[in-house]
Amino acid sequence: MANSEYVEEQEASVHPVKTYGWAARDESGILSPFYFSRRMTGEEDVRFKVMYCGICHTDLHFLKNHWGISSYPLVPGHEIVGVVTEIGTNVTKFKVGDKVGVGCMIGSCRTCESCAKNLENYCPNMILTYSGKYYDGTTTYGGYSNEMVADQHYVVRIPDDLPLDTSAPLLCAGITVYSALRYFELDARGKHVGVVGLGGLGHLAVKFAKAFGLKVTVISTSPSKCKEALERFGADLFLNSHDQDQLQAAMSTMDGIIDTVSADHSIETLLHLLKSHGKLIVVGVPQMPLQVPIFTLLGGRKMIAGSGIGGMKETQEMLDFAAKHNIKADIEVIPMDYINTAMDRLSMGDVRYRFVVDVRNTLQKTMSSV
Amino acid sequence: MANSEYVEEQEASVHPVKTYGWAARDESGILSPFYFSRRMTGEEDVRFKVMYCGICHTDLHFLKNHWGISSYPLVPGHEIVGVVTEIGTNVTKFKVGDKVGVGCMIGSCRTCESCAKNLENYCPNMILTYSGKYYDGTTTYGGYSNEMVADQHYVVRIPDDLPLDTSAPLLCAGITVYSALRYFELDARGKHVGVVGLGGLGHLAVKFAKAFGLKVTVISTSPSKCKEALERFGADLFLNSHDQDQLQAAMSTMDGIIDTVSADHSIETLLHLLKSHGKLIVVGVPQMPLQVPIFTLLGGRKMIAGSGIGGMKETQEMLDFAAKHNIKADIEVIPMDYINTAMDRLSMGDVRYRFVVDVRNTLQKTMSSV
Repeated sequence: MANSEYVEEQEASVHPVKTYGWAARDESGILSPFYFSRRMTGEEDVRFKVMYCGICHTDLHFLKNHWGISSYPLVPGHEIVGVVTEIGTNVTKFKVGDKVGVGCMIGSCRTCESCAKNLENYCPNMILTYSGKYYDGTTTYGGYSNEMVADQHYVVRIPDDLPLDTSAPLLCAGITVYSALRYFELDARGKHVGVVGLGGLGHLAVKFAKAFGLKVTVISTSPSKCKEALERFGADLFLNSHDQDQLQAAMSTMDGIIDTVSADHSIETLLHLLKSHGKLIVVGVPQMPLQVPIFTLLGGRKMIAGSGIGGMKETQEMLDFAAKHNIKADIEVIPMDYINTAMDRLSMGDVRYRFVVDVRNTLQKTMSSV
Repeated sequence: MANSEYVEEQEASVHPVKTYGWAARDESGILSPFYFSRRMTGEEDVRFKVMYCGICHTDLHFLKNHWGISSYPLVPGHEIVGVVTEIGTNVTKFKVGDKVGVGCMIGSCRTCESCAKNLENYCPNMILTYSGKYYDGTTTYGGYSNEMVADQHYVVRIPDDLPLDTSAPLLCAGITVYSALRYFELDARGKHVGVVGLGGLGHLAVKFAKAFGLKVTVISTSPSKCKEALERFGADLFLNSHDQDQLQAAMSTMDGIIDTVSADHSIETLLHLLKSHGKLIVVGVPQMPLQVPIFTLLGGRKMIAGSGIGGMKETQEMLDFAAKHNIKADIEVIPMDYINTAMDRLSMGDVRYRFVVDVRNTLQKTMSSV
């Protein structure tokens, strides 16, 4: 028996509940059907049938082990929505039939300074929804699978007014841009915010920013996105970042910038677009270190910060805000067996604006071996 | 007549009041006696006899035109203290005999957003105390000279409790670290702040931080400074930044870091010392761009910001705070004719902790040509 088969046999029996999904076995990142197992529903657990799962750029990084922290077999997916099928005896917040979601994390220490401030996402012992180690030492598997089980603390309610499919991307892309705008005080009506990159995160950044009452400039290297930025998403201005005249005219006009781009790019230009005391918030993950000429920071007491997802309390708040303001991700729904093609397209930026896997209708239990 | 002589003859007559100091004529940065002129005391002006002038690292950068913005002849000096000799008809804040100071700026637009917020230091039209262009188009000359004249808005009062000589460095080094601690909310009792580099800015950062009630760790590549950091300045801890064990032990312990080092250095290590949501404030001016690996920012929503001096209101507040808490720079007082040697020593970091020129007693009107 090959080693990978042995591993898979083990995974299929580590927990009592058989389950299935799609996994990558190695750094090729190629996904294919995979049998594994999940725990019984514990006292604090919410079990739910996965209906949709968004595809995040991070999934691609994990599949190909770009960050050197992937563990295989790897079942990605951390924008997971579904319907509750069972609850633990201590669960009072949810009941069977509720629409729920799980994002990037399913555990944290609950005692550190970050956890105490409802910032579980910055807990040093935060447990990732997939490719992580759970409290019991077992590997965590994400939402490209038929069902999920998670401690109720890390489960959010999808408001009735929000469709499940367009809500899935809110659980990572949405909370990331929402939390960045809120924490860095870029959410005050009338402020001028730039959004770099009009992809999965960028288009949601525009939507949340407009809902906050901000003036929004989309900054992109693709002039083809101008019309969509302005007409489809309601941005106020579009800035082609290859056009020196446009850049010159926009200098020192922005209170903040949400930079969603993961490709390596110069941030010096972006810093010049900020007013003094402006804030550049990086939410993409470029491979190369940012190059920061110190005068661009000193000159106007500008700052650069990183931000990633949000705590559980804020994630729920974001969903409720999205429901109130009718914020939905613009998605392309795909069947599970299209996933490898979708990853290829994602790596080329060919998606408007987020792939969402229709797990309920397209994940088939038709695997050759158990 | 050589060109430089012609320029100097012009400078000596551009304004009605003859004055003198020491200037560099070119990028060699060598200083020597220089005759020039200053304006009559205008309605809003305060005229004062210069008693002491601190030597800032920026003076060295300007003398050698490291930043490409120097104009020669160049009279440096922006940590200037003295005694008022004349006031304009509209000046009510000061009277003859008062102890006053002028820092890095002597003008700004007074109408922009920054000026309206008492942040004249971030006004795009801020006028530098030396090597700048004044409103009337004439070149500005700094404090290595017998007298100064400045609009009262840019003049601060040196509190009676503060000696003039040890107060001079507060006007640039002092306000820079004070404003950084205040603006970035690192001034709350009990917070833990790292101070990188124990030089002119660093030793004042420790003093202000201790006065705010902070826990202070001095971070330095020079273990020889440990004893001084702890015993002389009252720092709580000393961290040798070449010692991996010490660095490891200090990881994720600091709320903020004031980085005063102008030599190129890695900031990744510093970012690891910060708690999540920690702030790295750069007040030194390294030549090379900072290299910022994005994960070090994303992981704990950390930020990097620059900060430089402070507005006039805050500068006065800082001086009053220094008087209340008995904060004085540790200085080496030198005669004017030692200035070139002092610059050489400064470039090698050989000063504890700030040179201050005794202008009153050592600036001689004994120049060979007028």
